Amino acid sequence: MAITVVGSVAFDTVETPAGRIDRCLAGAATYFSLAASYFTDVRVIAVVGEDFTSKEEAVFAARGIDTRGIERAPGKSFFWQGSYLENLNEAKTLQTDLNVFASFEPKIPEVYRDSEFLFLANIDPVLQKRVRDAMPDVKLVGGDTMNYWINDHRENLLKTLKGVDILLINDTETKLLAGTRNPVKAAKDVLALGPKSLVVKHGEYGATAFFGPSSFAGLDAHHPFRAPALPLAEVIDPTGAGDSFAGGFFGYIASQKELTPQVFKKAMFYGGVMGSFTVERFGTQRLQQLTRDEIEERFAIFRELTHLDGKN
Amino acid sequence: MAITVVGSVAFDTVETPAGRIDRCLAGAATYFSLAASYFTDVRVIAVVGEDFTSKEEAVFAARGIDTRGIERAPGKSFFWQGSYLENLNEAKTLQTDLNVFASFEPKIPEVYRDSEFLFLANIDPVLQKRVRDAMPDVKLVGGDTMNYWINDHRENLLKTLKGVDILLINDTETKLLAGTRNPVKAAKDVLALGPKSLVVKHGEYGATAFFGPSSFAGLDAHHPFRAPALPLAEVIDPTGAGDSFAGGFFGYIASQKELTPQVFKKAMFYGGVMGSFTVERFGTQRLQQLTRDEIEERFAIFRELTHLDGKN
Repeated sequence: MAITVVGSVAFDTVETPAGRIDRCLAGAATYFSLAASYFTDVRVIAVVGEDFTSKEEAVFAARGIDTRGIERAPGKSFFWQGSYLENLNEAKTLQTDLNVFASFEPKIPEVYRDSEFLFLANIDPVLQKRVRDAMPDVKLVGGDTMNYWINDHRENLLKTLKGVDILLINDTETKLLAGTRNPVKAAKDVLALGPKSLVVKHGEYGATAFFGPSSFAGLDAHHPFRAPALPLAEVIDPTGAGDSFAGGFFGYIASQKELTPQVFKKAMFYGGVMGSFTVERFGTQRLQQLTRDEIEERFAIFRELTHLDGKN
Repeated sequence: MAITVVGSVAFDTVETPAGRIDRCLAGAATYFSLAASYFTDVRVIAVVGEDFTSKEEAVFAARGIDTRGIERAPGKSFFWQGSYLENLNEAKTLQTDLNVFASFEPKIPEVYRDSEFLFLANIDPVLQKRVRDAMPDVKLVGGDTMNYWINDHRENLLKTLKGVDILLINDTETKLLAGTRNPVKAAKDVLALGPKSLVVKHGEYGATAFFGPSSFAGLDAHHPFRAPALPLAEVIDPTGAGDSFAGGFFGYIASQKELTPQVFKKAMFYGGVMGSFTVERFGTQRLQQLTRDEIEERFAIFRELTHLDGKN
């Protein structure tokens, strides 16, 4: 079943201890859709400038991703430059040029309207809500956000969260959104804001899914679930790991008939798997050329890493 | 099979956001032995002062722990005062009085000499090595250390590590010991110093066991294993969580006939279980009054938290 994702399609310049890449294809919607494309049909809503050429278009096309919702506008695409030289776990932003993104007005192609799944990647919560409201019939809505929206656009974000079923954010964002440092209390407080499930991403330590008092996907407050991240010998570029997690997670759910506890848990694993691939190369390089066999192989490694009945 | 543990038996004064406790029975060897006592026979080597009374003695006795190796010396016991008010994940030391511990010379009672397991809790690596050398026939040696010994007594520590089979330290200590921030490279470098397995404790995120290129417990470099920690709504006092992990981990291994991959993995879970109990109350209060049923119940929760085939 198809997922529509709204978010940024951008160019990044990134420095990490492993090297540097200039103006590579990036953006939350790009990472998300590439990761999800290994599981299900994906449709993107975004805006790009004249620097988005047939070369970038071909990356989406090669993965069968529907780009009819990517608007071409005069000017340049969203550009971000960051450095992980000081801290591999957190980027230092050196430059952000919104460019055509500054006046982004998401337009939903008619052919996207039968999507059963919607993912609101990290953009202005006002735009997230507009897309969500325009697609009232979707079965499941996932969402992401970041510190900037939590701090400076809280009221708008709170309105958006009421329409999100599964919120995927990291530890810092969870604590900031809840206003408490206790991770379990923070999760509980965030769940009171609307989402039926909160997936907290822990970077190298994996991710934990929390649920409210009411059952969702057959799981509830008594059944948090934790999926690992792979201990990696070398992280080349951490950019996009979280968006890739969301893509693998949501993509797997969309590929299944029903959202059972087992499906939710496996989705957490696939999220971690896709995130672990992304950081192995700069930009979206690794995500562009995976096979389903490689994905299943890594899923098995994640399982063995955490399960008492592993092969060894 | 019996474990001999050498380490501190002390009194702590601790402040946390949940309150304060004054001069409670504490010390690495105390936490370790109480946690391990739920699985196997434990024998302690330590030194205490005149403030260690029949009341403290009774805590060990109630758990059947052999205290014949706890020397009574004139003066006061080791005293530590710390605060977690600013950071629940890391204590701020306010006072350390070594007292009788300053001239500690571990003496091994003859009745301890048939112990098959030895745990070297966090003390001067020179003393750790002396005890290890004096018990050449033990089957398995576990050990702990801390930043102070890694930084200022590195040469002595490196000699001790050659006689340790399983080293249990935290993320920061691992990176400091290896001199690299990459967690997987750091683990590999530490394993090159002697230990056959390195268990890296991640606090609220659990722990990961790494192995060298040679097989140990049927596991090797290709088979790291990660056990979770329980997402806890309230952490009352984090002191002793790591020592309790070591006690549960080592105690379970000592209770089994053979160190198979399955036993090693379950031991990681029991370590996390015992650590999660410890932080629920101040000092060793929770560890003093557990039942094996409670331990098994929490083991099942840890399993469900991480396993794809959980009950729900």
